[in-house]
Amino acid sequence: MKNKVKVQQSIWINPENSKIVEIIDQRFLPHQLVIEQLKSWKDSEVAIREMQVRGAPLIGVTAAYGMYLACVEAKAHAKSDSFFLEVAITLKASRPTAVNLAWAVDRQLKLINNLKNREELISTSLKLAQQISDEEVNNSAKIGQHGLALLQPLIEKKNGEPLNILTHCNAGWLACVKHGTATAPMYAAHRAGVPVHVWVDETRPRNQGARLTAWELSQAGIPHTVIPDNTGGHLMQHGLVDCCIVGSDRTTRKGDVANKIGTYLKALAAQDNGIPFYVALPASTFDWEIRDGVKEIPIEERNSEEVKFIQGLYEKNIIKVLISPPESPAINYGFDVTPAHLVTRLITERGVCQANETSIHELFPEY
Amino acid sequence: MKNKVKVQQSIWINPENSKIVEIIDQRFLPHQLVIEQLKSWKDSEVAIREMQVRGAPLIGVTAAYGMYLACVEAKAHAKSDSFFLEVAITLKASRPTAVNLAWAVDRQLKLINNLKNREELISTSLKLAQQISDEEVNNSAKIGQHGLALLQPLIEKKNGEPLNILTHCNAGWLACVKHGTATAPMYAAHRAGVPVHVWVDETRPRNQGARLTAWELSQAGIPHTVIPDNTGGHLMQHGLVDCCIVGSDRTTRKGDVANKIGTYLKALAAQDNGIPFYVALPASTFDWEIRDGVKEIPIEERNSEEVKFIQGLYEKNIIKVLISPPESPAINYGFDVTPAHLVTRLITERGVCQANETSIHELFPEY
Repeated sequence: MKNKVKVQQSIWINPENSKIVEIIDQRFLPHQLVIEQLKSWKDSEVAIREMQVRGAPLIGVTAAYGMYLACVEAKAHAKSDSFFLEVAITLKASRPTAVNLAWAVDRQLKLINNLKNREELISTSLKLAQQISDEEVNNSAKIGQHGLALLQPLIEKKNGEPLNILTHCNAGWLACVKHGTATAPMYAAHRAGVPVHVWVDETRPRNQGARLTAWELSQAGIPHTVIPDNTGGHLMQHGLVDCCIVGSDRTTRKGDVANKIGTYLKALAAQDNGIPFYVALPASTFDWEIRDGVKEIPIEERNSEEVKFIQGLYEKNIIKVLISPPESPAINYGFDVTPAHLVTRLITERGVCQANETSIHELFPEY
Repeated sequence: MKNKVKVQQSIWINPENSKIVEIIDQRFLPHQLVIEQLKSWKDSEVAIREMQVRGAPLIGVTAAYGMYLACVEAKAHAKSDSFFLEVAITLKASRPTAVNLAWAVDRQLKLINNLKNREELISTSLKLAQQISDEEVNNSAKIGQHGLALLQPLIEKKNGEPLNILTHCNAGWLACVKHGTATAPMYAAHRAGVPVHVWVDETRPRNQGARLTAWELSQAGIPHTVIPDNTGGHLMQHGLVDCCIVGSDRTTRKGDVANKIGTYLKALAAQDNGIPFYVALPASTFDWEIRDGVKEIPIEERNSEEVKFIQGLYEKNIIKVLISPPESPAINYGFDVTPAHLVTRLITERGVCQANETSIHELFPEY
């Protein structure tokens, strides 16, 4: 019966055993809803690296819980203090682009360095992991509110017709903890009775759009249409897109946005057709150390087999089929950078700002 | 042993029976090389509609042979004159975007209307079909020469390093008869000893790049790398693309180009990064009747199952796997239009011109 339950959260503590963290193994969606148990920090590292979990906010939360599980293990196996640093380094290296990962790990590491009592450490680091998770939930909810307010003029122009929103990849609750980032304004609009229709980029090579965003929207009863990544430009040329909303894996001080590969192409098409291009992100996604995203954000290169083989359902089994000639090489960059000048607005938990250093600084003066 | 032969032509008359036209059924490449026999005009219509053959020039040639097969049938079954018009209408409707289709069918129809002797008609329409085919071969060869000359300054800048060319879809010999259009300059460069490396957009939803272009280039020994359609912008931002060359399914008087869906997004990225964007096309691809491509070119909408299911090889069988939730709708536009101002040059059999009405008219003053 578990598969029939409509889950709406991507990570949680096992209600019967607080030393077990549970996640949805997102690799099998939309065909199977698989719940996975993380019982060690290494399990959480594998979950991030193998993309059982993905999406910048969720990666951060999973890493925070990974540090908590390391605290549990440190006591059980009397690990030395250097253990935590090793765990932190390995966790941070599990995915290179999302800045939330390092941010969450470093928050835990700071706490660990200040607390030498191992028993106390366990409860305190659990609290911090839960706090980071709660913060993300809260951030998503606020992004939904601010996003919906931002969409209001577009909604009014539609006179009751559905607002057509294009999104790329999955920046839904599966990428966060609840609500999502890019999807948060869609869910907020839907709850408020505003008709929306979402164009879902399938998002090759891993099809997070076709697999995850379509599944999420379907679960929520929000009308949507899956499109090849090639299609968005044509739709925009023909007035079929009212705005784009995407997430971010890392955002620079001046508003350059690293997000799933292909985001940049949609931003170009939006600009060419005078369509607003919004990026929804929690502040944890900002990398305050850098300005120039194209030059400074390291772009993860993943296994080329993810390009050559595509996963799908065949006779009730999830399998992978080979697309290209076996001898042809392929390359697989995970992200690209959309320069700030192509971003109409950033939607954060603190409100909406322009994608430039001054406007971002006004919203986040402490950084 | 047939599969071991390196074919380099996409359509031909059976050497033992001139009433049979042979094609490669391209739906099974790169995994299987299947030769199909067309024995009736209806076979040729199915071959075009079901995309056993595709690519604007090859669609035209297949339709020309289809009209020839109709002449054979007209004599064998004593068809009335209205039969030819019915065949012509059906053939023209088999794919809506490629203008070569109507152009080739109308050339045959004109000949048929002027020749009432049915026996003579057979040999004359065969000759015309072969002539149209030869013209395409000749056009492709010339496009290769003019294209190579156009690339010379870029080649010189590379100082012996490979020239990185990005292409979308398949505008190779599989889309034409021999040489191809977008690939013709690549083959010409390769033959001239110029090192080239081709970024092959996989070209969802039907993956003509990953399946056909990669196979062609692999057969020819040209270094290449398959990339998701999302990747080109990132490569261009990082100086990894020297130029783009694509084909065209229909080109307007002022140089707007309808080509495989997603072409427009690559043209935007090329412009944003100061990279030349070339379109290679035979004159048969021009639609002299229209100017504004976005407004006037009808864009084919194909079955959405082509988006939801992806074909590939699994345990030696070619099968289709489901990607998205079964309940999620999808949409499948076949082409988009790249406005002329994004096209750096057109490469035709008569030479190179700018994508504007004056420059095109200078090269083709008779239209």
